[in-house]
Formats: sequence, C-alpha cells, structure tokens
Amino acid sequence: MHLAKRGHTVSGVDNFVRRTNVESVGSQSAIPILDMEERLAAFKRIHDQNLTFFQGDLLDYNFLADVIKQTHPDSIVHLAEQPSAPFSMIDRNHAIYSQHNNIEGTLNVLYAMKDLAPDSHLIKLGTMGEYGTPNIDIPEGFFEIEFRGRKDTLPFPRQPFSMYHLSKVHDSANIHFACKVWKLRSTDIMQGVVYGTRTQEMIDDSLMTRLDFDESFGTVINRYCAQAVIGLPLTPYGQGKQQRGFIDLVDSIQCLTITIENPPARGEYRVFNQLDETYSIIELAEKVVMAARKLGINVKIKNVQNPRVEKAEHYYKVDHEHLRKLGFKPTRTIAETLEIMLKDLSKHRNRILEKSEAILPKTVWSGDLLGGYQAEPTSSIPSIQTGSHSAAL
Amino acid sequence: MHLAKRGHTVSGVDNFVRRTNVESVGSQSAIPILDMEERLAAFKRIHDQNLTFFQGDLLDYNFLADVIKQTHPDSIVHLAEQPSAPFSMIDRNHAIYSQHNNIEGTLNVLYAMKDLAPDSHLIKLGTMGEYGTPNIDIPEGFFEIEFRGRKDTLPFPRQPFSMYHLSKVHDSANIHFACKVWKLRSTDIMQGVVYGTRTQEMIDDSLMTRLDFDESFGTVINRYCAQAVIGLPLTPYGQGKQQRGFIDLVDSIQCLTITIENPPARGEYRVFNQLDETYSIIELAEKVVMAARKLGINVKIKNVQNPRVEKAEHYYKVDHEHLRKLGFKPTRTIAETLEIMLKDLSKHRNRILEKSEAILPKTVWSGDLLGGYQAEPTSSIPSIQTGSHSAAL
Repeated sequence: MHLAKRGHTVSGVDNFVRRTNVESVGSQSAIPILDMEERLAAFKRIHDQNLTFFQGDLLDYNFLADVIKQTHPDSIVHLAEQPSAPFSMIDRNHAIYSQHNNIEGTLNVLYAMKDLAPDSHLIKLGTMGEYGTPNIDIPEGFFEIEFRGRKDTLPFPRQPFSMYHLSKVHDSANIHFACKVWKLRSTDIMQGVVYGTRTQEMIDDSLMTRLDFDESFGTVINRYCAQAVIGLPLTPYGQGKQQRGFIDLVDSIQCLTITIENPPARGEYRVFNQLDETYSIIELAEKVVMAARKLGINVKIKNVQNPRVEKAEHYYKVDHEHLRKLGFKPTRTIAETLEIMLKDLSKHRNRILEKSEAILPKTVWSGDLLGGYQAEPTSSIPSIQTGSHSAAL
Repeated sequence: MHLAKRGHTVSGVDNFVRRTNVESVGSQSAIPILDMEERLAAFKRIHDQNLTFFQGDLLDYNFLADVIKQTHPDSIVHLAEQPSAPFSMIDRNHAIYSQHNNIEGTLNVLYAMKDLAPDSHLIKLGTMGEYGTPNIDIPEGFFEIEFRGRKDTLPFPRQPFSMYHLSKVHDSANIHFACKVWKLRSTDIMQGVVYGTRTQEMIDDSLMTRLDFDESFGTVINRYCAQAVIGLPLTPYGQGKQQRGFIDLVDSIQCLTITIENPPARGEYRVFNQLDETYSIIELAEKVVMAARKLGINVKIKNVQNPRVEKAEHYYKVDHEHLRKLGFKPTRTIAETLEIMLKDLSKHRNRILEKSEAILPKTVWSGDLLGGYQAEPTSSIPSIQTGSHSAAL
C-alpha cells in the first residue's frame, strides 16, 4: 500500500499458509482481516490505487515464472518464508518444513531471476537472529579482519538460534553465491524484531493486517501487548536479559522503501542491519507496563522458564548505518507505538481471550517438555476507551 | 572393510543413487563393481568378516529410524550426499535436488540421533570447499579473532564454490546447532579432494569400489588419470593455478578410523581439516604426466576454458593439525599412488573410452553454454603392462 501510494506499480504474491500455520498452533490473528479480494477492493475504494495479486506458492516454479513474466519486476521483495523460530523447533517435521520451504522457495526465486529477470533487485528478508550474539560488534554482513598478520574482508560468522534462523543463514549464503556467479543484485535485510499493529495507510479496518500473539508467530512485543489487554502478566523468558534489535512496523516499511529506491549494482550482494534500537526483553516488558498504565491497565511481569537455548546475558552492539546513510530516520518512539498497539488490540480482546492458551511457550529447544508455570489471569479484566481510529494513526 | 578388519561391527546403508546420477550425465564407473550382495559375499569369503547392509534412503525417516534401532551405532559415518559441484550447477532441478537431498537427509540423521541414539558420534563428510579461498589462513572450523578491540572465538566464514558446496555449509551449520541444543557429538570433516583407486583391503577385483572420471563425479586427479590412459590430453581448467587440498583414499580411510576411535565429548562439535598436501591443479597435471611417462605413456596438458567461477590465483594455507595430533601419518607419496591408479585404470581403458565424452566440462557456473575447445585424442592410444594386483597394493 505504501509503495503504491508513492507511485510504484505493485503486485502481491501469497499462498496464505500463515493462516493455516497459526491455526495449527491453536491461535488466530488478534486483528481480523478480510479476504484478499475484499482488501484489494477496499484499497482501491479508500486510496484509489490498484494492486495486482497472485495466489500461489514459490515452491511451484511454473507459477513463480509466470508471475515474473507477467510483471517484469524491477524489485522482488521476498517475505514469503516460514518466519517462526518456535514453529521450526516443534519437531522434525516442522524443522524440515521450515528449511524446505525457505531454502527451496528462495532458490526458485534466484533461478527465476537468473533466467527471466537478471536485472531485477532481490530484497530478501533475513533476520538479525542470523548473527546470534557474538562477543564482538556485529557489522553489516561483512567485516575486514586481520588474522595471523594477513587481512581479508569476509562474511561475518553466523550463529543462528533455531532451525528457522538457520534456514535464513542458508538463504543468505545461497543469495550471496547467486550474486557472485550470475551477477544478480540483492539486498539481504537483517531485520530486528518488528512490532506494531499498523502502517500509515491502514486508515480503515478493512485495510488492517494480521497481528499474531501466539508463542510461535507472535513476536515478543506483540505478545506482551496481547497479554496486557487480557489481563495476563507479561512473561519474559528466563531473566529477560537477552538483548535483541527492534524496529517499528512503520519504520520497517520506510526502510523497505529506501532499499527499493536505492538498488545495488549488478553483481552486488549487500547486507543491511535493519533495526532502530536494541533492548533487553525485560526492558521491553517494563515499557509495556508503563504504556498500559497510561491507558489505565495494571499489568504485572512474571518471568517464565526460558524454553530456548540462548545466552542469558551477553554483549550486543550492532552496526546499522547503511540505511541511515540512505536517509532512514525513525519516525516515532516505542512508547507512542505501544499506546497505539494497546488501543488497537483492546478492541479485539475477545479474539485474544479465545486463544489465550496459545501465548505461553510449549515448544522447548532441548526437545524436552516445558514443565511448571502456567500464567493465571490477574484479578480483573482491564478496560480502556477506544474510539475510531484518529487521523494521527 | 577397513573398520571391520579392525574389529568394529559395521553396517552399510545406501540407496545406490550414485549409479543413476552418473548414468544421467552419460558416464559409468571406470572400474566395474559387483552388486552389493556379491560384494558382501566376497568380503566374507576373502576377509572372513561379516558386514550388514541396509538398502534405503536417508530422506525416508522411518527407514533411517529402523536402521538406528537395529544397529545401536556408536558412530554414524554420514557420506550419503550428492557429492558433485558440477552436477549441482547443471540447472535449477539439480541445485534443488542437491540441497534438498543433502540438507534434509542430514536433518533426518540429526533428529534420529536426538530421539534414538543421543550418545552416538556423527562423523559427517564436509568438504574443504566450504571455506573457499580466503586471503588468510584457514583454521579448523573456528578461529579466535579480535575485532574493534574485543575478542571471540567464532565459526570461520564460509565462501563455498557451488550449490553443492553450499549444501555442505548448510549441513555444517545445522549440525553445529544440533550439538549445541541437543548435546549431540559430531566431527565435521572438511575433506580435501580424494584420489586413488583402492584401499588396502581391495586385494581382489570383487572388492573394488567405483571410480568416476566424468566431469561431475570424477575429481580432478581421477579425471587426469582417466584421460592419460585413453590418450587424451589432461585438461586443467583455466591456467590451473587454483590450489586445493588433497588426500589419498588410503589416508582418508586412516583418518576416518582415527576419528571414529577418538570421539568428541557430548555436546561437542569439532571440525577436522582432512587433507595431506595442497597443490595447484596444474602441478597435479604435471605429476600425472610424470607418473604416466614412467609407465610408457606420453601425455600432454591442454588447458581448457574454466567453466567455474573461482579465483584464478589466490593465497591458500590450511591448518590440518587436529588429525596429526591424534596420530594421522600419511602413508605414501602421490607419485606412488598415481602409478597404482594408472595401472588400475589402464585395465579398464575400454570402459573409459566408451564414455570419454563425459570427461570435458559442459556445465558452466555462469549458466551460459561453454563454447570452443573439444579435446581430440592424441596420436596413439598408449599401452602399459598391468599384471594382477600385487600384494603391495
């Protein structure tokens, strides 16, 4: 929607599998969304712009090739991956599904570009989680190092957190290779955790996007906000001192736009670390508590056993200059966005309550079952005032 | 055969797909091999030892799980991958097949170990080609680096050469993760290019293993020797100054034995660089010329256009101390082995001649067709004396 409003010709491609996968873990989007036909009609009605849409799967090469032939894309924004770490860690089938879907879908995109659109720019959504948490600064994809008196500029070592994160590391290596060998061009986005319920174009309920709050598809801030509006304590994993990079959905769209409008040269594979700020997940819980309090919601924090294998405390310093040099400026504070999120979600409290059991972690990295703590609702279900969306949203 | 003779209980698993894949590129093994039943019977007859064998595919998890349950392995030696770089670069289908087969087969092994044999030791065949050719020394898997005044020990960056090499990089990352999360133990072997026609146990034709000489499945020394015995010039790619690590088949088996008999601790993921010496491929061609001359074969070198995307000249210095510290000692010179190889292959000259068109490269990394040079047989088909295998072989 944002790109179309800037004058780009935009086509969407989706196989709608997110819906199925979220259902399979016993959850649903907190925010209801219309079906695609209705959403396209709403966009046309409200913003007076056309979007084209193709329903299909990147694993179906003939489908993908047809889309490329019909659209002649200048840019291909590839977000079509299984995006959940816990989902990939449920069992062997989910691990294989995640790597199969992500690696082979991306290979198909690379071959389609090579054969049908070699001048196109691939913008691929990776994740900051590809890097893990090394004890040194994290540069943007590559670093110059000296080792035993000799120097080279090499890919920064990856230490991914899950079968899902591994699939993205594999993608990155495959894309880098394709750029080198076939002179394709690509920007590989190491994105921080995205939070937010809406972009600037979502000025009507019919234009909203989904927001997942379950263990697998809900990212940490989205889960906290869902817990807050239904009166459950916020549940950081472990002590909550693990740090990650974060970015607002609106700023993520801004970065995407900048990346599309500033393509790399043919043969260039560049990596952008796409994040605004880094926080520990306990700090984020405290920010959600404060934002909720402003809206009259009293919410507690209750740490739960960490189901993941990750460092409890660690160094974390991430370069993110490439996008700033191209003009990226964060547009709002996290406190402002949290307030919008809590208002948006409180309108759909019942949808979250219906599936509230999906929030707490059940998938354990070690393969054992997680025992113990089950969060109980706190005394009262809070209530906050929400009107229709203001223009400021 | 070597392990069984040392007193280990050994089971083999194979789906025999190498046969099909070599046929699909228009070639065959230079050395004829019997079917598995006959080979097992020959081993029993000649060496008086039993080997168990299971025919099946690692992609079939139920089959794999049954094998693990029946055998309770202390060690799992995983060589069951699509092993050819050019094969993986033929087209999209071959790239996807290579990554699918290798990644998902290995994931199945990891999950089978986690669920059924968590104390077992996975010995996984990787490749020196995972590292590429950085401008700094190549350590064994990990290196301590200083970056902006801070230190960490990190996985050494990988810069693989092909879709096949990429699949092995992906495997390495998946295995490393499984060791960390599930406390599995593994040795990931970064093996140099293997050459040789026989191991010490192959004292009868019925015990021989295959030797491929085609573009895809024949490694460089094997291809040179095949060219020599049918009177074709040896064809280094490009100027031939690209350097690689090499190891004799007999020494490769020695290393494998050492690795099995010295397992890592639970949770440990270790990397061995398994090679003996590094050579440029033009040096190797010159060594084959000399070895052939000793046997009365006059053979020429004729460089061909390099179908691969790789550095023409580069720094190459590889650590390989881990196996030496565990007792590995190379047993023979490359000149000795080349002589054995040329003798073995000259017995099967007709089988190579039948498929000689499969030797020169047709698969081009850039995706274009390779034009130009086709090697012509030199003046006369050479002839060398070969008797029956001596005990020294």
